[in-house]
Amino acid sequence: MKKVGVSILGLGVVGGGTYRILESHREFFRATQNIDVTVECVLEPNAEKTGALGVPAEKVASNIAEIVANPDVNIIVETIGGVGVAREYVLAALNAGKTVVTSNKELYCKFSHELEHTAKRQNAGLFFEATCVGGVPIVRTLLDGLQANKISSFMGIINGTTNFILTEMAKGTSYADALAEAKKLGYTEADPSADVDGLDASYKLSILSSLAFHTKVPLSKVFREGISSVSVEDIRHGAELGYVLKLLAVGKQTEEGIEVRVHPAFLRKEHPLAAVNGCFNAVYLKGDAAGDMMMYGRGAGDLPTASAIVSDIIYAATHSEYRYSTFKNTEKEEKGVTFIDDFSSAYYVRLSVEDRSGMLAKIGSVLGKAGISINEVVQCGADEENRATVVLVTHETHEYAIRNAVSKLEASIAKVKSVLRVAL
Amino acid sequence: MKKVGVSILGLGVVGGGTYRILESHREFFRATQNIDVTVECVLEPNAEKTGALGVPAEKVASNIAEIVANPDVNIIVETIGGVGVAREYVLAALNAGKTVVTSNKELYCKFSHELEHTAKRQNAGLFFEATCVGGVPIVRTLLDGLQANKISSFMGIINGTTNFILTEMAKGTSYADALAEAKKLGYTEADPSADVDGLDASYKLSILSSLAFHTKVPLSKVFREGISSVSVEDIRHGAELGYVLKLLAVGKQTEEGIEVRVHPAFLRKEHPLAAVNGCFNAVYLKGDAAGDMMMYGRGAGDLPTASAIVSDIIYAATHSEYRYSTFKNTEKEEKGVTFIDDFSSAYYVRLSVEDRSGMLAKIGSVLGKAGISINEVVQCGADEENRATVVLVTHETHEYAIRNAVSKLEASIAKVKSVLRVAL
Repeated sequence: MKKVGVSILGLGVVGGGTYRILESHREFFRATQNIDVTVECVLEPNAEKTGALGVPAEKVASNIAEIVANPDVNIIVETIGGVGVAREYVLAALNAGKTVVTSNKELYCKFSHELEHTAKRQNAGLFFEATCVGGVPIVRTLLDGLQANKISSFMGIINGTTNFILTEMAKGTSYADALAEAKKLGYTEADPSADVDGLDASYKLSILSSLAFHTKVPLSKVFREGISSVSVEDIRHGAELGYVLKLLAVGKQTEEGIEVRVHPAFLRKEHPLAAVNGCFNAVYLKGDAAGDMMMYGRGAGDLPTASAIVSDIIYAATHSEYRYSTFKNTEKEEKGVTFIDDFSSAYYVRLSVEDRSGMLAKIGSVLGKAGISINEVVQCGADEENRATVVLVTHETHEYAIRNAVSKLEASIAKVKSVLRVAL
Repeated sequence: MKKVGVSILGLGVVGGGTYRILESHREFFRATQNIDVTVECVLEPNAEKTGALGVPAEKVASNIAEIVANPDVNIIVETIGGVGVAREYVLAALNAGKTVVTSNKELYCKFSHELEHTAKRQNAGLFFEATCVGGVPIVRTLLDGLQANKISSFMGIINGTTNFILTEMAKGTSYADALAEAKKLGYTEADPSADVDGLDASYKLSILSSLAFHTKVPLSKVFREGISSVSVEDIRHGAELGYVLKLLAVGKQTEEGIEVRVHPAFLRKEHPLAAVNGCFNAVYLKGDAAGDMMMYGRGAGDLPTASAIVSDIIYAATHSEYRYSTFKNTEKEEKGVTFIDDFSSAYYVRLSVEDRSGMLAKIGSVLGKAGISINEVVQCGADEENRATVVLVTHETHEYAIRNAVSKLEASIAKVKSVLRVAL
């Protein structure tokens, strides 16, 4: 039976989960995979963490050099996060010919070219299933399950924290209270900006769209808007029109180019993604052969993410040759590849207008001149200042067109309270 | 660039789809996979089929011997179906050291031990993604995406024809009319029994549960009940109680043993599988690390199934070593493995009783003596023969207990109109 030695760098939530699975499932992997996987050592300066997991003192390494020099270590798991020491350690591991398994989406998003180049040169494996959508094997599926397909588009709910917050807000909880609840439950960091500003989702979108469209999609090309200015009022108006608000990551490839964006968006409540609630994640994609497909599951958490890491470890241990990405893994985008920023969408617009006759006609006229037609419109009763709320949903139009039209409305007859995209 | 020669046996719906993808995507696979895949020859006696696809005459082989002797053929795709010539040809291919990709669920279900044994001996690959759930890469996911997990259970809607029929029936269409519609649309064969009797789903369940539970689950162990006696009336009563009826394939592994069954079952309408309609399929599973997960997509059809075949071809072409199943692939079940037939479930029971007072109490008493408690009960108004309909849903109980109790009801106070399982 093949022996496989693992070292885990960083025993936080995900590293700890990985340690626990490897310890508890050793017999299971011997029986089902014909491999004997052991944790040879860990790198974790916090003795409380190693103690809580029961890591024997002799398995706690003092530095990365000791680990990469250890001939019993075949696979190094990086669950430190960030692009500081994590990058340094991963490069050291790869340069020593060790296979690396990482859950670090920022690192893989920003430095996949450097890591992959180093891995190839040393004939080492580089695995990153755990960077995207937790326990759901979406990376494996894109690499090894849907290769027959030209993927034209996908939409995902790929950040659990924001989906939890939006799910709470759909019940009427304010943004601030929902965010506080997410912090209390440990779903987000003390500084939640990477989640709520859509950065975490953007890292994942960059990775997934590079795989789906077979070309490097750098982070800088991802249009990004977070959820911090989303209001319960908009969620309620949307619900009345049959929509659910989600933080969507959208990737599309058309003849005009590639479009990648993370922003809150209304989905028709019948859409399979609309029912993805709380910490769950899902990716809905369209392949030219497979048709519509969705993968749904736990997008974060200790064991779900560790499931991805350990499955990568097993994959690495049971394959003696490694494949890398199916695109030219460059630092920036490949030459000749176009990215689209004036994407098309439908839009939800909430306006505050004076409560007098003819206002809807005027709004319609401003939009009409911009080439935008209205699909649905609702006017709500006036408030004490004699202002009425108008909520409208447009037909398909373009991002720049709506921005222009909205400025014109703002300059003439309406206060623009919010503009949200509606997924088509 | 590696050259890969393919031969397709049988150009029916799926074989034809495979031919079309390979012809149209050759450049795409050169660009994204760095392989040059060509169809070297086909085996299809029907000249109409080869003609419709535009297969050049020189690529139509006259017999299997010619194909297995062709050194330019590396991979043989079997899309003939059945266990007659398909088995013979696949064995011939494997014996010649050719890698085989098959969509034949009956063949793989019944003869996987023989095929795998032959493949291993000849160092040939054996791929069968297309046997289960069409374009959804569930086999790849079980083999290469969720290996970290002990899978405790899964439930699937894995037959598109019956799901189409049940979706139509939920709109009020009779079974006969829905079946006729399915035939008209080409969703089922002239003889629809393999679909409506649950045999097709049973083949797939046998394959998927063998992979999920890492032990051979023979077809003979699958409890099977089809949809031909399902009535619109039961679907309507279920809907009133908040349930949707689906043909479910269920696999469970507990300390007591393995449980595998295909039968119609009511699902709470909030369950993610309840929203899987028409020809769509889905598998919902629970892993001990990944948690709850679902894969959803097109379970049948030319291109979705061909997506699975062509993805297998690419996998085979880009890996030089082959792995086989993660269980002892025996003809019958492994020694020491227990299968459970007295499984537990909740039950929906529809009764016709005399419309007089005290009947519900009597029913409750018969069930109570059998240790079965009632969760919900509805009594509908009497008909002209002074008989009332009673619909009840039990709490969790056992299959044998409900069968016994139902016989006692039948022998004493009620006509039993239907008994359906309710997924827990």
